[in-house]
Amino acid sequence: MDEKPQVRSWWGWGWEDRALGDETCRGLGALIPGLPDDPLPVPQVADLDLPPPRMAAPRSLARFCAADPDDRASHAQGKAYRDVVRALHGNIATPPDFVAHPTDEDDVVALVDWASDAGVAVVPYGGGSSVVGGVECDGEGYRGVVSLDLTSMDAVLEIDQTSRAARIQAGALGPVLEDQLRRHDLTLRHFPQSFEFSTLGGWLATRAGGHYATLHTHIDDFVESIRAVTPVGVSESWRLPGSGAGPSPDRMLLGSEGILGVITEAWMRLQQRPRHKASTSVTFGGPSASTDAMGAVRAISQSGINPANCRLLDPGEAALSGAAHGGEWVLVLGVESAHHPVDAALAELIELASDHGGVASAPTIESRGEEADGVVGRDRAAEAWRSTFLQMPYQRDGMARMSAVVETFETATTWDRVAELYDSVMVELAEVITAVCGSPGLVNCRFTHVYPDGAAPYFTVIAAGRRGSELAMWDEIKAASMEILVRHRATVTHHHAVGRVHRQGYDRQRPEPFAAALRAAKAAVDPAGILNPGVLIEPRGEPA
Amino acid sequence: MDEKPQVRSWWGWGWEDRALGDETCRGLGALIPGLPDDPLPVPQVADLDLPPPRMAAPRSLARFCAADPDDRASHAQGKAYRDVVRALHGNIATPPDFVAHPTDEDDVVALVDWASDAGVAVVPYGGGSSVVGGVECDGEGYRGVVSLDLTSMDAVLEIDQTSRAARIQAGALGPVLEDQLRRHDLTLRHFPQSFEFSTLGGWLATRAGGHYATLHTHIDDFVESIRAVTPVGVSESWRLPGSGAGPSPDRMLLGSEGILGVITEAWMRLQQRPRHKASTSVTFGGPSASTDAMGAVRAISQSGINPANCRLLDPGEAALSGAAHGGEWVLVLGVESAHHPVDAALAELIELASDHGGVASAPTIESRGEEADGVVGRDRAAEAWRSTFLQMPYQRDGMARMSAVVETFETATTWDRVAELYDSVMVELAEVITAVCGSPGLVNCRFTHVYPDGAAPYFTVIAAGRRGSELAMWDEIKAASMEILVRHRATVTHHHAVGRVHRQGYDRQRPEPFAAALRAAKAAVDPAGILNPGVLIEPRGEPA
Repeated sequence: MDEKPQVRSWWGWGWEDRALGDETCRGLGALIPGLPDDPLPVPQVADLDLPPPRMAAPRSLARFCAADPDDRASHAQGKAYRDVVRALHGNIATPPDFVAHPTDEDDVVALVDWASDAGVAVVPYGGGSSVVGGVECDGEGYRGVVSLDLTSMDAVLEIDQTSRAARIQAGALGPVLEDQLRRHDLTLRHFPQSFEFSTLGGWLATRAGGHYATLHTHIDDFVESIRAVTPVGVSESWRLPGSGAGPSPDRMLLGSEGILGVITEAWMRLQQRPRHKASTSVTFGGPSASTDAMGAVRAISQSGINPANCRLLDPGEAALSGAAHGGEWVLVLGVESAHHPVDAALAELIELASDHGGVASAPTIESRGEEADGVVGRDRAAEAWRSTFLQMPYQRDGMARMSAVVETFETATTWDRVAELYDSVMVELAEVITAVCGSPGLVNCRFTHVYPDGAAPYFTVIAAGRRGSELAMWDEIKAASMEILVRHRATVTHHHAVGRVHRQGYDRQRPEPFAAALRAAKAAVDPAGILNPGVLIEPRGEPA
Repeated sequence: MDEKPQVRSWWGWGWEDRALGDETCRGLGALIPGLPDDPLPVPQVADLDLPPPRMAAPRSLARFCAADPDDRASHAQGKAYRDVVRALHGNIATPPDFVAHPTDEDDVVALVDWASDAGVAVVPYGGGSSVVGGVECDGEGYRGVVSLDLTSMDAVLEIDQTSRAARIQAGALGPVLEDQLRRHDLTLRHFPQSFEFSTLGGWLATRAGGHYATLHTHIDDFVESIRAVTPVGVSESWRLPGSGAGPSPDRMLLGSEGILGVITEAWMRLQQRPRHKASTSVTFGGPSASTDAMGAVRAISQSGINPANCRLLDPGEAALSGAAHGGEWVLVLGVESAHHPVDAALAELIELASDHGGVASAPTIESRGEEADGVVGRDRAAEAWRSTFLQMPYQRDGMARMSAVVETFETATTWDRVAELYDSVMVELAEVITAVCGSPGLVNCRFTHVYPDGAAPYFTVIAAGRRGSELAMWDEIKAASMEILVRHRATVTHHHAVGRVHRQGYDRQRPEPFAAALRAAKAAVDPAGILNPGVLIEPRGEPA
């Protein structure tokens, strides 16, 4: 058994050896008229013209800091389409001056204290899977930029079986964390698409969306207490199952994207592994398919059944994932429980869907001693979709190499506006894409999470880019998409965070007094304004 | 039908005509050895020696302001035991200088603007049911104090049937709000003990605990968006079913107790009225009753069944409410749904309770077209407890008139600490009571809300006070109870808010960097520090 350890891609998604080969890229590219014949080459760090570091780590911190080109390049940005495109074109303009790899909280405190004194920006970095410019900092106005990589702090430190909770270090990647919990027959059960490549701290800082399509949609719901290093001291909330003592300190850190403190650990509520699962897919066809499908999902979201999975694929998305090919909408449903059989619940869901004209496949029911982690069940359409889901980012990178424009954006809005928003994006964005790209593109949609009062549509855009202009083209499409969301008062992000990319929309979304409060709160805990400057708010006051 | 309109008691709980008569007071007092023979007389506003107003409302606001003694006395404080005792002794030392009764948001803005300029403290006031000193302000350091009574702003302004949500003015009392929603066959289904005498705005500002014993325990979970008047402008979040765009602006206002803004309206998520209910009570006896009962509740809380009601009464509480008299623990269980029968779910709960040695009464199952609002089902023990629950505050007032010390406090902690905390309070507080009162008192407990990772114990203290010293005696017992909670790192309040009474514990509970952030946030949105000074934090910086 002489397996080579898997290596993370510095320029693209996930594992280096999972990146698509040139031939596969060509095959994908051929599906989109107007693309070049050959893929851009896989970029190499050695070929990059990285700006030299403006500064080195001080001697006191040198033990856990590195400034080699590999580390600097891989920490320069996240994994959005725009990041991949820039890497493909060798454009890594703002790498950190060095990368810190603290092994304990004392290291983090030492780094933050030094950076506060030195006027150096600190960018907390977990798995680096940000798709919103969350880990990218030009350092303007600062003496330098440090990327603070927390993945060496990845232990489950304590398990409380009685309360079903664990104290977990923030740098634990999904599999690292789940492997440690599995020994205790417990699970956090937070499975975002980025699961393998993102950390607990990142999930908390960005209010990540996970496994559950209903009820507990965000990581927020599983937080018992958070510990964070701020420039004015360590903050730690008490472990509490519930409280009404003032505004929640945890809720202020959730979504703070690193601007208020560096999350070092958290007590998280855990679950038992589900032993009963039932899933199916429901197809909606005919002229009223979209109304029927959305009506079914709304009825389900308001039924109190709270299925673990409730993903609605529009015809484009269903076709792309192989779930349906005749213009149907497909609803993927899954129910699960650690305690009791769930077939009755699935039957109720199917009945609700049938009431709205849906046609269900035969359900798949599983009840067993041990379960395999999985985002959805084993239904054929469901399975097809799941496999596509995990493969998507690699395909995106392959298409990016062919100079296609391939990216997603997601939002949420109340049910009274969902259909209107969907139509608006489908029609208007298609026009924008045609104008920008010179030929029509694809806009697909799935609803990833649903609520009694609304849904979270997740859009995918695929269009033919012009080599060298991909970034500008996407930026134009992205700006247009944000305009549409703002006009409908749909959130600029449901679970991908604001980062730097969504500032344009976010600045119009958040109430102005709240922005003033957040800015002041930041100034109080980060007086030098060194923590992840540029995400969410201007750290040193908004430009007049 | 010539019914007299019910009148609110200015000095005690609820409706004036529901206050216990002298004879009933004597009967209650006789149960506690060592109390005086006669009740303190019902206090009259005319007999009060109110300090004269330091200032009058300016002409521009006079239209909706009043300074008559009735208004000033009834807005001087909340409805805690300590408030009732002070009223009974004619001690209303810090009434507001006048009371504002705005009829729309413009009035609120005008008042807040004027107060900011004039350096007058503004205390937002809903139903006035605070039990933590939340609406009482001595005005030290301010030119005066205005009580801002929002109950004239009590309309349901908009209903969105599709999203099952409503825009509701903050001053709507529970019944006022539910009456308006009932016409649309919807309900907010938030039923705190204070339901009749508290408002939506008050619930939001204090993170009130309501109907559900599991899952959606606090009003927080039903908030779609909040609108609030701050001294720097009106804040309004977008209506969103879910979002990951930065820290939640709503979560910053939830629990802010009036220090960041005056909540004027909110979009709230509604429910359909339940049509299926099942309930029962389970008794735990024998030497391991407490371990068994807590074990059962823990198993239920972690089962994913999420019953609407799951209240555990300890032997003292069970006896006091008539649910059991042989030293048993009693668990009141209720399941409900608007959509599907719930007998199977109740059966599962009973099985879990039986596994832990509980003996269940025959369940009561109801399925009907229309439901009556009710906190619990119709099971006998459940019913006995419910009736006691709603009568409790009136009995407390009656006993206070007999100079008994009668008050409650509540908390929450994780399961690994619940039993230890319970034992600690029962033993240590009993000792404190004996030391303070010169004779043993009662300490009872019920768990009002439960979570997969912990529970919220709610304690009742009944002891013999010495006439004239009741307040000092309770304050001493309260301080001791807070010490116990802090030592166990149990929250100083699960759903009664911090107010002024819990500052001593809260100041040690909240992380210091969070306090700094909150103080700065307040300074940003309330630069003159006029909003409800004294709750949560020092508005003008902590004393050194």
